[in-house]
Amino acid sequence: MKFRVGILGATGTVGQRFVQLLEGHPQFEVTALAGSERSQGKDYADACVWRLPGDMPASVRCLKVEAPCVPLDCDLIFSSLPCDEARAVESKFARAGYPVISNSPAFRMDTDVPLLVPEVNYEHMSLIGLQSTASQNGGGFIITNPNCSTVMLALALAPLHVRFSVEALAVTTMQALSGAGHPGVASLDITDNLLPFIEDEEEKIERETLKILGHVAQSKIIDAGFAVSAQCNRVNVIEGHTAAVRVKLSRAATLDEVRETLGSFTSLPQKLGLYSAPIHPIIVRSEKDRPQPRLDRDAGHGMSVTIGRLAHDPVLDYRFVMLGNNTVRGTAGSAILIAELLVATCLVSSPSLS
Amino acid sequence: MKFRVGILGATGTVGQRFVQLLEGHPQFEVTALAGSERSQGKDYADACVWRLPGDMPASVRCLKVEAPCVPLDCDLIFSSLPCDEARAVESKFARAGYPVISNSPAFRMDTDVPLLVPEVNYEHMSLIGLQSTASQNGGGFIITNPNCSTVMLALALAPLHVRFSVEALAVTTMQALSGAGHPGVASLDITDNLLPFIEDEEEKIERETLKILGHVAQSKIIDAGFAVSAQCNRVNVIEGHTAAVRVKLSRAATLDEVRETLGSFTSLPQKLGLYSAPIHPIIVRSEKDRPQPRLDRDAGHGMSVTIGRLAHDPVLDYRFVMLGNNTVRGTAGSAILIAELLVATCLVSSPSLS
Amino acid sequence: MKFRVGILGATGTVGQRFVQLLEGHPQFEVTALAGSERSQGKDYADACVWRLPGDMPASVRCLKVEAPCVPLDCDLIFSSLPCDEARAVESKFARAGYPVISNSPAFRMDTDVPLLVPEVNYEHMSLIGLQSTASQNGGGFIITNPNCSTVMLALALAPLHVRFSVEALAVTTMQALSGAGHPGVASLDITDNLLPFIEDEEEKIERETLKILGHVAQSKIIDAGFAVSAQCNRVNVIEGHTAAVRVKLSRAATLDEVRETLGSFTSLPQKLGLYSAPIHPIIVRSEKDRPQPRLDRDAGHGMSVTIGRLAHDPVLDYRFVMLGNNTVRGTAGSAILIAELLVATCLVSSPSLS
Amino acid sequence: MKFRVGILGATGTVGQRFVQLLEGHPQFEVTALAGSERSQGKDYADACVWRLPGDMPASVRCLKVEAPCVPLDCDLIFSSLPCDEARAVESKFARAGYPVISNSPAFRMDTDVPLLVPEVNYEHMSLIGLQSTASQNGGGFIITNPNCSTVMLALALAPLHVRFSVEALAVTTMQALSGAGHPGVASLDITDNLLPFIEDEEEKIERETLKILGHVAQSKIIDAGFAVSAQCNRVNVIEGHTAAVRVKLSRAATLDEVRETLGSFTSLPQKLGLYSAPIHPIIVRSEKDRPQPRLDRDAGHGMSVTIGRLAHDPVLDYRFVMLGNNTVRGTAGSAILIAELLVATCLVSSPSLS
Repeated sequence: MKFRVGILGATGTVGQRFVQLLEGHPQFEVTALAGSERSQGKDYADACVWRLPGDMPASVRCLKVEAPCVPLDCDLIFSSLPCDEARAVESKFARAGYPVISNSPAFRMDTDVPLLVPEVNYEHMSLIGLQSTASQNGGGFIITNPNCSTVMLALALAPLHVRFSVEALAVTTMQALSGAGHPGVASLDITDNLLPFIEDEEEKIERETLKILGHVAQSKIIDAGFAVSAQCNRVNVIEGHTAAVRVKLSRAATLDEVRETLGSFTSLPQKLGLYSAPIHPIIVRSEKDRPQPRLDRDAGHGMSVTIGRLAHDPVLDYRFVMLGNNTVRGTAGSAILIAELLVATCLVSSPSLS
Repeated sequence: MKFRVGILGATGTVGQRFVQLLEGHPQFEVTALAGSERSQGKDYADACVWRLPGDMPASVRCLKVEAPCVPLDCDLIFSSLPCDEARAVESKFARAGYPVISNSPAFRMDTDVPLLVPEVNYEHMSLIGLQSTASQNGGGFIITNPNCSTVMLALALAPLHVRFSVEALAVTTMQALSGAGHPGVASLDITDNLLPFIEDEEEKIERETLKILGHVAQSKIIDAGFAVSAQCNRVNVIEGHTAAVRVKLSRAATLDEVRETLGSFTSLPQKLGLYSAPIHPIIVRSEKDRPQPRLDRDAGHGMSVTIGRLAHDPVLDYRFVMLGNNTVRGTAGSAILIAELLVATCLVSSPSLS
Repeated sequence: MKFRVGILGATGTVGQRFVQLLEGHPQFEVTALAGSERSQGKDYADACVWRLPGDMPASVRCLKVEAPCVPLDCDLIFSSLPCDEARAVESKFARAGYPVISNSPAFRMDTDVPLLVPEVNYEHMSLIGLQSTASQNGGGFIITNPNCSTVMLALALAPLHVRFSVEALAVTTMQALSGAGHPGVASLDITDNLLPFIEDEEEKIERETLKILGHVAQSKIIDAGFAVSAQCNRVNVIEGHTAAVRVKLSRAATLDEVRETLGSFTSLPQKLGLYSAPIHPIIVRSEKDRPQPRLDRDAGHGMSVTIGRLAHDPVLDYRFVMLGNNTVRGTAGSAILIAELLVATCLVSSPSLS
Repeated sequence: MKFRVGILGATGTVGQRFVQLLEGHPQFEVTALAGSERSQGKDYADACVWRLPGDMPASVRCLKVEAPCVPLDCDLIFSSLPCDEARAVESKFARAGYPVISNSPAFRMDTDVPLLVPEVNYEHMSLIGLQSTASQNGGGFIITNPNCSTVMLALALAPLHVRFSVEALAVTTMQALSGAGHPGVASLDITDNLLPFIEDEEEKIERETLKILGHVAQSKIIDAGFAVSAQCNRVNVIEGHTAAVRVKLSRAATLDEVRETLGSFTSLPQKLGLYSAPIHPIIVRSEKDRPQPRLDRDAGHGMSVTIGRLAHDPVLDYRFVMLGNNTVRGTAGSAILIAELLVATCLVSSPSLS
């Protein structure tokens, strides 16, 4: 028997990714879809212009799109609501007893809300118990999925930080169009062009990285204590965020140690054999011109981060180029992995609402 | 009476830019075109597939493409030969008394060869006197134009280095397709993609920047003494190299001082009123999403570098995004500005060969 | 003394083109800018995100954006209003005595409104006299600029139709992004993609071509009597609409006659030496791979149409590929040429409103 | 036991597609790879820069690349040799008893060589018996795969021709970059651009369509007797050829009949349940803006052709837009389907050479 899943913001690009990735999932079944007023009351097939290659899964075509209101017929909520709506709606669901996994920035920096990358800081799930809703009303709570660039960055830094203690991080991103949703970036603005600015992105990376890599002490997160600099650019790539990374380490590390530390990294999701967990969360390639978005974004079914061009850096200690799939590992895939971790660790009990 | 100019590598993309920029130039007139065997003996109009918008200038259509051999009917040589041919051919011309302005990397790091950005290190022209050819054979010599990304970077750093002394530089480039010439980058490799690697580019930036910003002491260049880190990427943009720059300064500087230092920079070419010298070598913009290649690459007729997003940086001291036209300021335009400087400072005497 | 010009829809992409093309115009001076509520009351520099390469002309930066209401301080109106607003607003201006040159489809098919391509059907200007407003209120009237693809198509067909009588026309367009305005086409929809559909475009071409190539008889237009088929596609090109054209002719024509008829075409605007009239309205190229948008869209300052690949066709009689600049010849440039024709033929008298 | 397959031109883009599509094929196993001198003697993993998303299949990484010479250790040859080499090499293999399925144009128009689209003209396989090699030397022969655009076009036309008899065909293609191989089209030539010319493409479509849709009479092909006009363009799309088609029919047909005839088409490969045969060779979509390359090129695992925008045409009778995957249905996938048909009809007997 599968967990019944509801998706808030179901007709958007992230919502569509959720629907696509959950098709055929062994543990989850989409039973509720919520969207904006324009969509409500329509069948999903009519409400949603499907923009992913391949057809909309048959199983959801006739689901009615509902308002994002309690109750929804599901055990678990994935939310990809816009930030301005997310705060009110998601807390309403949490208060009503739903576990909510949110892609919105609304709650990410709240002290009692985990900002979770399953391979990196699964211990932060303990924060859930601090949420007032968790102990009442049937145990609802909110877990947030970080900013898409930050998920990948945290994944690449985690093993380095554990072993060598990161002292400074300078990252320059070249981010894909799908990160902006649809319609998102106007074609006139990006053809034969790039944009050296993404609203709030640098701030999110500089802020969220430190929370994710922080540790829990006395029921709160102590942020990691290193300097982070992010410069973010939008480039003419459909999918796959690339980042040029430079990192300074507190402890001495040889190039081979750094490579081995990255390439051999696995964590709890791999140990638990979670369905969406990639065998290799980090793939280190040795070709001189990889990673490339079009060639590497689907590595590990979009859940692996690919690193290449690892080398000593004359200014900080090491540099490399990193690439990850922003809508899978960066957004919907990571959120589903969080849900799988919740199930595996019995933090979601099914069927809570039936 | 104009200086007669010869172009080596005249049918390539850089050669075409030379032809285009020299059309109607008040001091120079193209009188000789040299190309590879395939082109020799043909009219330029037949030898060259013109790939720039607009038609090939009528004045060169009927010039015969010659072999790149001494003598050529000209007072001055612009060379855009491939690196492997450049060393032999260019020194042959220098020995025969021609001033040679070269875009090739062949001689750039030679101790007696200026690596010149006219606004930045015009004092390095004194090295010409050290070249053995300069005092004999009618005074031929070689001046080199730096790597296209490095020209722009040096221009932006020069005023900062003079006033605040640069201590470290970390630059991440997003470079245009035209930098690779034609056919250059295959469309299959760059559509919906980026390439995190450009052959030798990082090494060139890390090496050439320090020579350009160095100073002449006892008849040789003392390189600037700071650390440089370059990460270079090719992106799907036709023209205009963008660079995300972080810089650490030895002396304290406020954000306003840095902005003012950049925006008010002028130098000898501006003082001399050289024809190709932009009024503002560096344009500082305050919009949050500029510079952009398509909108800013033609600023100052392609000779100005545009800087935006200037801000404090958490890891180094300041960061900004910089953009310049790689085939104008980065290549042909800068080489022509060098030639104008040579004329203005009487280092080329006309007509030396007639 | 220049004619004072007002632009309705001044902050949009077409409005910006008008501003750019009118900068330095010998006969016209922009004195009034009207925009939507969001822009009204602001300086143009603040109201408008300038999206064309180069900076906004200094002369308009401080013009206040007004509501599109009578009166505006100008002798002549260029309108690029959205279709739904155009009908009411433009007729209001015409009734108030303003000559209105409109890019909107609103009035294009009205029987007393010329649908004008100056080189093709300048005789249709006689329709102006039929407009009720023309004889009263100081002589206001409306002239419409055709759909951007249709302008070019009509230009290419006109000389063929006159000499050989077109019997059928099948055109397949590959249209540029700028034709959809800003934000227009989402980058996610067009990167590594094309769209085989443009709303209403096929209908407009099939309908407007026949009106433009029609003739005036007994104070009305008799449409040209041939069959037109249009298939319209959006492709990943910033500017320059390309069309693959096949045409059947009623009278026998050799390939040389067709080529000569196209290439030698000139008309009244050339005879009158109008400022924006290209010397060659149609340029016929013989290279096997031209025209190309990036190389040919600026031919004749964007006012010439370029034709290539002219050949016999196995199904209809002849085929060729045609390219024109959709925002210059297709829109703002053509409208300005209409205004120049009005001035030259004394249909606008200055200063009518002062 | 699987048929052992050899690939000529194995390191090219088509060769890589063959390798990818044959991975895990139930009937075929790649046992021999041949390439140019530069590759010979190397492991495939070293000889070939893999340019498809995902990694090179492990099963071929250590296969040595050989010269394209008899003998090769295989039962069947797929050739993607360049045209100039194909004629000599392929006939050598045929004479040595190998069945050769060729993507090269070399033999396509030979009277005793089938130009095969399995769903369209499987009867043409009878021509094999006419090949002198077929009756000797163990039964080698050559079958050719048509030009990639023509495969799809023939597929779409076949059911219409059978039922309504095509009288004229006018097709305007917008073809993808992958059709030109690697390096193929230079990025500078196609970014913000399109090319209205593809070498020999129009001729191939105009010629091959008629052979494919012809019938066998008295041991030869009688070409179909209608007029074909093709205008071919290269557009900035990675994969998926789009064609705007207009067709005149000899027999009266309603729009519904045409739609039904296209959408319900199946043929022998479907009846035989061939592994690569799509359930629906032609998919007819009703959305107003489909087909689109990025959304529809993988329909039927790249083996279905998608048709949309079907409508009456004012010049010919009907028009529609058609899209197919040029490297799967257009090239490697279609060739594999031919091989499956040969196996199913016992025209290849295994293991012929062991």
